[in-house]
Amino acid sequence: MHLTELVRLALEEDVGNGDLTTEATVPAGRRGEAHIRAKQPLVLCGNAEAAEVFRQVGAAYQPLLEDGARVEPGVVFAQVRGPLRALLTGERVALNLLMQLSGIATHTRRFVEGAPGLRVVDTRKTTPLWRASQRRAVRIGGAANHRFALYDGILIKDNHIVAAGGITAAVRAARSAAHHLLRIEVECESAAEVEEALAAGAEVIMLDNMDDAQVGAVISRHRGQALFEISGNVSAARLPILAALGVDLVSVGGLIHQATWADISMKLRIVETDLS
Amino acid sequence: MHLTELVRLALEEDVGNGDLTTEATVPAGRRGEAHIRAKQPLVLCGNAEAAEVFRQVGAAYQPLLEDGARVEPGVVFAQVRGPLRALLTGERVALNLLMQLSGIATHTRRFVEGAPGLRVVDTRKTTPLWRASQRRAVRIGGAANHRFALYDGILIKDNHIVAAGGITAAVRAARSAAHHLLRIEVECESAAEVEEALAAGAEVIMLDNMDDAQVGAVISRHRGQALFEISGNVSAARLPILAALGVDLVSVGGLIHQATWADISMKLRIVETDLS
Amino acid sequence: MHLTELVRLALEEDVGNGDLTTEATVPAGRRGEAHIRAKQPLVLCGNAEAAEVFRQVGAAYQPLLEDGARVEPGVVFAQVRGPLRALLTGERVALNLLMQLSGIATHTRRFVEGAPGLRVVDTRKTTPLWRASQRRAVRIGGAANHRFALYDGILIKDNHIVAAGGITAAVRAARSAAHHLLRIEVECESAAEVEEALAAGAEVIMLDNMDDAQVGAVISRHRGQALFEISGNVSAARLPILAALGVDLVSVGGLIHQATWADISMKLRIVETDLS
Amino acid sequence: MHLTELVRLALEEDVGNGDLTTEATVPAGRRGEAHIRAKQPLVLCGNAEAAEVFRQVGAAYQPLLEDGARVEPGVVFAQVRGPLRALLTGERVALNLLMQLSGIATHTRRFVEGAPGLRVVDTRKTTPLWRASQRRAVRIGGAANHRFALYDGILIKDNHIVAAGGITAAVRAARSAAHHLLRIEVECESAAEVEEALAAGAEVIMLDNMDDAQVGAVISRHRGQALFEISGNVSAARLPILAALGVDLVSVGGLIHQATWADISMKLRIVETDLS
Amino acid sequence: MHLTELVRLALEEDVGNGDLTTEATVPAGRRGEAHIRAKQPLVLCGNAEAAEVFRQVGAAYQPLLEDGARVEPGVVFAQVRGPLRALLTGERVALNLLMQLSGIATHTRRFVEGAPGLRVVDTRKTTPLWRASQRRAVRIGGAANHRFALYDGILIKDNHIVAAGGITAAVRAARSAAHHLLRIEVECESAAEVEEALAAGAEVIMLDNMDDAQVGAVISRHRGQALFEISGNVSAARLPILAALGVDLVSVGGLIHQATWADISMKLRIVETDLS
Amino acid sequence: MHLTELVRLALEEDVGNGDLTTEATVPAGRRGEAHIRAKQPLVLCGNAEAAEVFRQVGAAYQPLLEDGARVEPGVVFAQVRGPLRALLTGERVALNLLMQLSGIATHTRRFVEGAPGLRVVDTRKTTPLWRASQRRAVRIGGAANHRFALYDGILIKDNHIVAAGGITAAVRAARSAAHHLLRIEVECESAAEVEEALAAGAEVIMLDNMDDAQVGAVISRHRGQALFEISGNVSAARLPILAALGVDLVSVGGLIHQATWADISMKLRIVETDLS
Repeated sequence: MHLTELVRLALEEDVGNGDLTTEATVPAGRRGEAHIRAKQPLVLCGNAEAAEVFRQVGAAYQPLLEDGARVEPGVVFAQVRGPLRALLTGERVALNLLMQLSGIATHTRRFVEGAPGLRVVDTRKTTPLWRASQRRAVRIGGAANHRFALYDGILIKDNHIVAAGGITAAVRAARSAAHHLLRIEVECESAAEVEEALAAGAEVIMLDNMDDAQVGAVISRHRGQALFEISGNVSAARLPILAALGVDLVSVGGLIHQATWADISMKLRIVETDLS
Repeated sequence: MHLTELVRLALEEDVGNGDLTTEATVPAGRRGEAHIRAKQPLVLCGNAEAAEVFRQVGAAYQPLLEDGARVEPGVVFAQVRGPLRALLTGERVALNLLMQLSGIATHTRRFVEGAPGLRVVDTRKTTPLWRASQRRAVRIGGAANHRFALYDGILIKDNHIVAAGGITAAVRAARSAAHHLLRIEVECESAAEVEEALAAGAEVIMLDNMDDAQVGAVISRHRGQALFEISGNVSAARLPILAALGVDLVSVGGLIHQATWADISMKLRIVETDLS
Repeated sequence: MHLTELVRLALEEDVGNGDLTTEATVPAGRRGEAHIRAKQPLVLCGNAEAAEVFRQVGAAYQPLLEDGARVEPGVVFAQVRGPLRALLTGERVALNLLMQLSGIATHTRRFVEGAPGLRVVDTRKTTPLWRASQRRAVRIGGAANHRFALYDGILIKDNHIVAAGGITAAVRAARSAAHHLLRIEVECESAAEVEEALAAGAEVIMLDNMDDAQVGAVISRHRGQALFEISGNVSAARLPILAALGVDLVSVGGLIHQATWADISMKLRIVETDLS
Repeated sequence: MHLTELVRLALEEDVGNGDLTTEATVPAGRRGEAHIRAKQPLVLCGNAEAAEVFRQVGAAYQPLLEDGARVEPGVVFAQVRGPLRALLTGERVALNLLMQLSGIATHTRRFVEGAPGLRVVDTRKTTPLWRASQRRAVRIGGAANHRFALYDGILIKDNHIVAAGGITAAVRAARSAAHHLLRIEVECESAAEVEEALAAGAEVIMLDNMDDAQVGAVISRHRGQALFEISGNVSAARLPILAALGVDLVSVGGLIHQATWADISMKLRIVETDLS
Repeated sequence: MHLTELVRLALEEDVGNGDLTTEATVPAGRRGEAHIRAKQPLVLCGNAEAAEVFRQVGAAYQPLLEDGARVEPGVVFAQVRGPLRALLTGERVALNLLMQLSGIATHTRRFVEGAPGLRVVDTRKTTPLWRASQRRAVRIGGAANHRFALYDGILIKDNHIVAAGGITAAVRAARSAAHHLLRIEVECESAAEVEEALAAGAEVIMLDNMDDAQVGAVISRHRGQALFEISGNVSAARLPILAALGVDLVSVGGLIHQATWADISMKLRIVETDLS
Repeated sequence: MHLTELVRLALEEDVGNGDLTTEATVPAGRRGEAHIRAKQPLVLCGNAEAAEVFRQVGAAYQPLLEDGARVEPGVVFAQVRGPLRALLTGERVALNLLMQLSGIATHTRRFVEGAPGLRVVDTRKTTPLWRASQRRAVRIGGAANHRFALYDGILIKDNHIVAAGGITAAVRAARSAAHHLLRIEVECESAAEVEEALAAGAEVIMLDNMDDAQVGAVISRHRGQALFEISGNVSAARLPILAALGVDLVSVGGLIHQATWADISMKLRIVETDLS
């Protein structure tokens, strides 16, 4: 679903058949201007989402800083102009998106900054319907993305292996069914599984819940035969160690699901001259 | 938007034109059973959402504990039965919802348990499109709800007051426009504003960012003339104090936006006997 | 559903895969102008709806009188400009809405004009999907609105009372479940029920099918303890009596469902100069 | 749009994110039974619509009389069984449809009963989105239908004639563009126009706003050369005269837009024994 | 479904959550121009469809030749201007429509050109969801259209006849149910059936799978009593014979379902000067 | 879009507000049975689509042969049971899908059977909205699929290369942006381009419009360094040659767009005994 449609539905959720307070108290012709400011240090994300919200209610959102900027508390990073009613009606949905996405970008930035050379990626643990925006927040924060969804990548997990009757069978079935632009990834929990997966033709190996010694052993033995991805509650502190061991990627669901919202607020100013 | 539709869209987001891995590796006829278990202490929430996800992919979700149950790590709280493919395809979306909602319920329970008699309510700071589920998670956690949206309550904030030309004008305009089943709430930042709002007919007063002394003074003077709601980054520690001061409600956006996801996982077991 | 979507569906209903007659007989390039006029005395309503219809077919609707104007037979109250095809294709849907809504506004104006000080409100007896427009027609006609729907007000009727196990139980359950910006209304059929409802905390009392004596007795006894709403086939003639008895509101479903359409027609003029 | 979808939207309009009163006061497990009865003499219409409403909320509507039955005041014509909550939540939308459609059927029956042999048809003056149901109400009432919409019939009116450059040009253009299963109808306002339309190949002639003498003259001259349809505020009293003159059809928009709703009510009974 | 919506869905199908290649390799600011050219002799059709595709992705399609033009191989018939990304992202969907529709127009032109005076029409054998465009391609190719769908014409086939209990019963039932702007067509397989259908009031006779002698016999006997349509795998070579026999129409499903796509390609040129 | 929704829209296109002929001539209670048979030799495809069509109209489609079966003319491969009205109303849409998809499967089978070991794949040249079904028809016919759409594969074509400033730049940009489960494919038109693409890290090379000698030279030089895909109007006759040269894949848009529909018909039988 495109952002346009998501925002339409989000406004329908919050506004429904009318913003009772605003319609009752704010004259239809009045115009205004709003400043949106950070109330904590944050990495900004969500300009596109906020702009779409205000566009749909009939106002114009102007970012003063780009997504990815570090913003100090008190700094105004965007302004909005339009009918006062539109500013008030769109405020909450726009802020909800800015706060959530800046929260993810801020959390991600903090998470990855200790291991600048390592490719840290997100997972499919995202808030349903907001995956595209949340993945962008992860990139804005300095990490990268895993596959988008079940339809654009093959990742064979333990359950698939059991169902297929073993790693070799699973990899072959996947290779035969998948189109030729897809690499096959296999989740492995032991060195033996890694051997079998590589022999069967796996091109990416996910080492799940292995400690550093196990990871080091696998990689030193198989370096170059596949990409190696580490997963399983990896902490920021462990990233430099994994980088030193030569892993190719680390996937961290918590980039998204352990982020809380950043604090952001909007203040209005009524513009007295209006001719509408 | 109803849960049915939200889940349909969530599955469309994650599955799209097919679960490539599962379709390639898991035989169509196989059936299985999955156990869903807590991996941390949590207050369970999201049974209805998970059930709808599995229903839409063709499996049956059976909760073993009800929403609101405290669940210890390792405890299986639900099982799912159906075609293996369905279990695997629905797993991620179902867990994403269970983890998010249990996270909110768990956070809320912890937040409110120090002030059992006080009515703590949420705000409109919710993840767009998931407000109904998140509000339920708040109730499950032991707090209550504020108005749902802009269409079912009148809450006059500072910006409305400025636009309307003062508190009195704003309250009167709201009273005249609103249907007679709605009370009028006004956000006040000083004792003088409270006086004016009450005189104009406000029935609920939101005291925003007042300290305990200010809150105490207002309430001791105007007790019984309206409901008094406290807002503005109230901490859990402050709740007993506010309760002692006689406030009617405290609204806390962080019940939702400062909650992180609870850790939950699903394990599959293949059921060997199957004829269909 | 917003007006944009309703009108889109209405045009789909009437135009479907094409206006066969117009496409066959009217050259694509021709432009024209249409006058819309009253054919009976009416209170105008529906300008926004008609404007949206013509906008969607590619023409521009220009009201010459505002919603709420009293229009005498023969008076042109709007003109439309655009491609002849658009004028012809949009005509019926636009007139259907203008005729229906002006019918309601006209009927309402006539109904309420004998009791100018009394708050007469509509009910939920509206044509499905057109409630927002019909409620506006009621306001345009000089009456007011009750709650919009089941989701923005609490009105406990006899069936709820029986199911809840009595008035007191019902009111308490409602008070506990409802957010604090909602008042509780209870339908009462006797003085005893009014007593119980008030004691339980009801803030609005609907007196259903009571005669003037009963209404008078209740209000003189309980004046100021709640708002009193009268319902049940109230005629226009009875309004002044109810006003004199001090009732706060009278609800009348017939404002909408006993209104017939006002007679309105559209005449075209071809504009000869066209270059597009 | 199919009835299923219309009813879904109608319930969304009235129920939205919840029936606050019912959810608060009616226990989830309770079941009940409701009787729907006429409160005035009426011709019943809307069983299918009411059944769909109750089906969507989870109850079962059982008609005791068929659409088209004459129902005396006080007679129960349908019963509904299911969860009490479903009965209460669906009641208003179901009654709104039954009342509107029975209103049209009743009005139509009264209108046409003085001229049993004459084909009286409706027009495109219908409430947007409800045309299919309203047309059925017209048939139930004893009249017939004109074309459904702009896409399934050719009816050349004065404006089309002007735009096309005359009757002959318009009819030829229509004949050439239309598929061969469509007859061409032309609106004529004088005997000369009838001559031209027939010569050009029109197969149906609409005589608009002609008096009885004019109608008689046209028909006696051209009987058998086409179908003759009379339109323009025809009253019920005039129908026998038109029948005697040999007209083929009379179209009457008022069958629908001059009908008011019939009075219908629903009463609940709680069924005490319930296990589910 | 309107073209706008069809194209939106088609782009959703092909682009989904992003054109990975283009977003990765083409700078966002670059603008370009594309030429669309025929790679075989063809009758052009699909300009409106292609224009809508490019409009939706943010580029502008400019036809250099109109639908219906005969285009020689190598000839550029349209150009597109806009952001390079838009040109690349929209290319495939636009070409898919141009190739399919030009294929139908080209095939139809070739089919009908040997019998210029005869009305050859399509059938309901069309690609689901694309009927309106395919029917237009047929007209562009020089043939005409049968009824659009089941809702705008009556065509009684053998199965209907059996179900109704004979031709006479079927025609009468249809005449009574159909509105008066519809003619009744009956499929006949023998001279006796033609007799019965005409006697019952059929206005169009479809002669299905009759040879030339049979067709000739029927038409010479009943000329002028109805329209006669021939169907059943009629070849282009047979058209002049049927024309000579005096048939009114020939319906040919193969105009659409035996057409293959025309070969069309698009070439890009980057426009170096860009400021946005 | 899922098949359920596509079929819903297809039925809406063909049935709209009613199947006039069937509703008029076929009694509502009658049940029947239909046989669907091949009228030419074909490879069957479309059982799922036909089943969904009949399910939605209320009948039950029972395949007697599976997708992929070779069917001789005259053979009944499916039967349908249900209300006669449902059979007649669903017939055309179901047959349209069976005929189109069996046409593709039949054409594909014939195309690939001369080179059984070679992987022949389709392209994105598919009928908009029907890609999933058409791709399945290709697999049923014995070929395989390329990427589904722009969102699940990286294929760098000449235009991307120019925009990116060369092959090396384009491949690097794609590698950096793409998630790690995607291989990068590059379209090359000369041996030098192949060299550069491989050096830059391309994992799949598309050789576009090269003759056999060129293909042979490239492959003998770079065998094993990447997958080699041949494209550009490859004929069935050329497949064995390409197989002998060691190419990995051949992509052929014509599998879909040069297929015409297979001839299939449905015959009804009325079942006399019916009680419902």
